[in-house]
Amino acid sequence: MKNSVSIGLFGLGTVGSGVIQLIQNHQEELFHQVGCDVKVKTVLVRDIEKDRDVQIADIELTTDPDKILQDPEIDIIIEVMGGVEEARQHITDALNAKKHVATANKDLIALYGPELQQIATENSCDLFYEASVAGGVPILRGLSDGLVSDRIQKLMGIVNGTTNYILTKMDEDGFSYEKALKEAQDLGFAEADPTADVEGLDAARKMAILARLAFFTNVELDDVEVNGISQVAVEDLNYGKKLGLTMKLIGLAHFENQQLEVSVQPTFLAKSHPLTAVKNEYNAIYVNGEAVGETMFYGPGAGSLPTATAVMSDVVAIIKNMRLGVNGHSFVGPRFEGVLKTADQRYSQYYFRLHLKDEVGAFSKITSLFNELGISFEQILQTPLSKDELAEIIIVTHTVSLENFQTALMKLRDLPVVDDVISYYRVEGDGK
Amino acid sequence: MKNSVSIGLFGLGTVGSGVIQLIQNHQEELFHQVGCDVKVKTVLVRDIEKDRDVQIADIELTTDPDKILQDPEIDIIIEVMGGVEEARQHITDALNAKKHVATANKDLIALYGPELQQIATENSCDLFYEASVAGGVPILRGLSDGLVSDRIQKLMGIVNGTTNYILTKMDEDGFSYEKALKEAQDLGFAEADPTADVEGLDAARKMAILARLAFFTNVELDDVEVNGISQVAVEDLNYGKKLGLTMKLIGLAHFENQQLEVSVQPTFLAKSHPLTAVKNEYNAIYVNGEAVGETMFYGPGAGSLPTATAVMSDVVAIIKNMRLGVNGHSFVGPRFEGVLKTADQRYSQYYFRLHLKDEVGAFSKITSLFNELGISFEQILQTPLSKDELAEIIIVTHTVSLENFQTALMKLRDLPVVDDVISYYRVEGDGK
Repeated sequence: MKNSVSIGLFGLGTVGSGVIQLIQNHQEELFHQVGCDVKVKTVLVRDIEKDRDVQIADIELTTDPDKILQDPEIDIIIEVMGGVEEARQHITDALNAKKHVATANKDLIALYGPELQQIATENSCDLFYEASVAGGVPILRGLSDGLVSDRIQKLMGIVNGTTNYILTKMDEDGFSYEKALKEAQDLGFAEADPTADVEGLDAARKMAILARLAFFTNVELDDVEVNGISQVAVEDLNYGKKLGLTMKLIGLAHFENQQLEVSVQPTFLAKSHPLTAVKNEYNAIYVNGEAVGETMFYGPGAGSLPTATAVMSDVVAIIKNMRLGVNGHSFVGPRFEGVLKTADQRYSQYYFRLHLKDEVGAFSKITSLFNELGISFEQILQTPLSKDELAEIIIVTHTVSLENFQTALMKLRDLPVVDDVISYYRVEGDGK
Repeated sequence: MKNSVSIGLFGLGTVGSGVIQLIQNHQEELFHQVGCDVKVKTVLVRDIEKDRDVQIADIELTTDPDKILQDPEIDIIIEVMGGVEEARQHITDALNAKKHVATANKDLIALYGPELQQIATENSCDLFYEASVAGGVPILRGLSDGLVSDRIQKLMGIVNGTTNYILTKMDEDGFSYEKALKEAQDLGFAEADPTADVEGLDAARKMAILARLAFFTNVELDDVEVNGISQVAVEDLNYGKKLGLTMKLIGLAHFENQQLEVSVQPTFLAKSHPLTAVKNEYNAIYVNGEAVGETMFYGPGAGSLPTATAVMSDVVAIIKNMRLGVNGHSFVGPRFEGVLKTADQRYSQYYFRLHLKDEVGAFSKITSLFNELGISFEQILQTPLSKDELAEIIIVTHTVSLENFQTALMKLRDLPVVDDVISYYRVEGDGK
């Protein structure tokens, strides 16, 4: 074993700078862990001349990936450049050059994780990606080491800080979606183009990665059903409050009878659910295991240094494996094909809001419709609307299949007394 | 590598039964992880004839530890018998016989962890104890793998389910301590002799283990300052509520400038602190790292199957190491002596309640005393007491050294206008 391990870094943005800073500040801690010096030797950047926030005096910057890929001194690649195709090429080349890889790239792993994992295994290399889900929260190791002996049944994640910040502001301060988004952008929690966050795509990528690891299934990104928060009205959050419910953008992964449901959607949580207390830009993953019951992992989902700690936990694991000569053995492959549940196999409670014409017997037409379909109600709120002689009704159902609920919605819309179905959302109880 | 790994189990109580059940129910999952069958071969019990809740048809029960210790087929020992001296002897013998050990025994590890670790290392054996702290919560691996690259500064744990259940009942339902304890005993959350739990000793053992791993220090059990909850009055919880504070039995481990503070004491938490939401018998460990910021690990702190999942995560790690031939290399030794902070180096906010004689200018005597000592107040509550012409005053200070606060308490008690200082507690802000 060498006295020093050299790292090649792809990308010097927010996370890349955090990695350099963390390595510089924690030299002694790292040495104590792995018994040798750890240093970044070369960094691939787009612009060598650009001013940098971090100390890079003894680091070589380059615009040529081969300077890293063909350097025999470099054993480990950290990929934090983002994007998909270029990163995929570099990581493939690195693994084929027998270099171990730690990446924070959720887009890439969600799309090509299994393919890259296979290349890693063929080359006896480690490929780790702890930072790809929930930044500083060590959830991937939590699943694959800590909860390894259990059978995980359900996983619910608040895995996107931007949307959690927006929903917290809407819920606690009564902000509209637009105002909350603007504030998130001003504070740097949301990007100028927020689409990937607010439409749930970012969360969907993380849920695909989590579902693969939690259930040992083949899950493709396309398997994840996605709904974002851009259509969420502050009115629904206020009604939710009256019903003891808080809205979060929840990534759900549920596995039973070897069948799978993975989705991202705005969901009302009961006040007592552990995820309800997760506020602002924080992330948390709630894991329900057959034997362990309820557990939750909470922490920062993004940020330069928090994400860097996750990247460097991968690097420490790689170096420890190097010292023992056991790289390329950590990955445990899938056991199941990811067969998706159909709508009649997916059960949940639902919240829905509708406008009803203010006629005698209108409400009883609703109740008999649901009665016919065998759907019962847990909570009902009725408020008169001053305009248009309409009443606003909010109903929370008991547990019902998605198919049944969709049928109910369709039939509701056909009822002459129903003016409009305004909104509907999944509801999660207290987590038991 | 063999086709089957045989385990010797010491103890067949709650956790031992959980281990057998988990192995039987999760045979396929375990095989998928480690590539071989995992079975319990022999169990050391006190009474062979006793009726058991679990299926033990193909398992040998014995009262002779040597049946396990001298069996060359047995590679792994699981110790869940509890107690200290006998377990210490068996684990020492097992390690010297080159058998790997997974134990759930916090009393033993708190007292003799370093000694046993050394014996394990000398024998190239693994000694793991994930189940010794916070049952099903994978916090030890979270610290030593997940957060390995960070410098952990502060750790706060709700690591005793019994006391958390009692305090939750007192806080939410207004129960007295005695009534809440009785209910906890009826539900099986508290033992007939609850001393170790309610006086904080159980939590102290877990905090010693956590502080060692989090800070790489030598911490002895005696280094942990302990105060339990048996003297906590429901009045203080109610005043706390008015001040936006919730009481929890908090294990605190704080490390700065290579100096250490480890304590267990009833502590008021700000409403926004992540630990405030941890209720009933649940456990959680809040970890503050220099780079990662705030993280929290939440889950069940006890129970047959949850604790068994932690034990079996150790067993899976041991078998994976066996397959790679790298047992005995996981442990990373301490870096620092555990030098304790003195009272002038320990800072906190404090809550205190006192009875003041109802005289003109009495309160200003209090404020000038604290003013002289440089201690300022964050919140003040004053209530007239109907009896005895006394006023009840509750004060929350700004941050102050323990030494300074203790001086203030002493001088308070000497003031003629002060009838009595009823209680005082540490206060933790919002966790930032």
